[in-house]
Amino acid sequence: MERIPILRMGHFLLVTIQIDLYDRLATNLEADLVQMVNRTGARGVLIDISALNIVDSFMGRILGNIGSMSKIMDAETVVVGMQPAVAITLIELGLELKGVHTALNVEKGMELLKQKIGPAEASDEDDDEDGTE
Amino acid sequence: MERIPILRMGHFLLVTIQIDLYDRLATNLEADLVQMVNRTGARGVLIDISALNIVDSFMGRILGNIGSMSKIMDAETVVVGMQPAVAITLIELGLELKGVHTALNVEKGMELLKQKIGPAEASDEDDDEDGTE
Repeated sequence: MERIPILRMGHFLLVTIQIDLYDRLATNLEADLVQMVNRTGARGVLIDISALNIVDSFMGRILGNIGSMSKIMDAETVVVGMQPAVAITLIELGLELKGVHTALNVEKGMELLKQKIGPAEASDEDDDEDGTE
Repeated sequence: MERIPILRMGHFLLVTIQIDLYDRLATNLEADLVQMVNRTGARGVLIDISALNIVDSFMGRILGNIGSMSKIMDAETVVVGMQPAVAITLIELGLELKGVHTALNVEKGMELLKQKIGPAEASDEDDDEDGTE
């Protein structure tokens, strides 16, 4: 597999990471996500990692990268479904996922995003400005 | 990987299939989904297959199975994000995915599910009856 699918749900993008991200896959995911944020005017990115039992520094860095990239594209990133062992490993590795919010599951993550972007923005559908392409 | 994560979103369950389903994975997914429908009282199952470029008769049968199982658990199944080549192959294989609805993407699939279960049910949060366990 070369690409992880990104699902659009209203103002948010949802990504489910089910396999270990090797180099190419991670780079593609970063690029796809930023392009998708640009194209759709999404205000939030939800990354579900409930399928990951282990995490390494590479994966931690990728999550941080996605958070930083989304941030400068004016979108918040929420990582959801983190397993306890993964949280322990991340801290032991010294990766605090700065700039990335976390929530227990997708539903809670969506609520968090709705709070972050504000109720007014959440119902506004005219954010994307690439209509001239 | 032994399990495909199932995300709960309100009254619906969302599954993103990103890799080929071999025997064990498919059996686990069927079992997990039925248990999750039972536990959460979900009224709809969304299966995103946008990452699949090819499909075989096994995968077609699994999708049909999930649809039938969900149906007798009183949940509708919607397959979303099917690529044109996959649709062609399914028909050439003689698999019409009976009992399974389809929609272009997750958003349209959610709208379809909300229509199917009716607006009254969609806002009712008291469906699950396993509080005594």
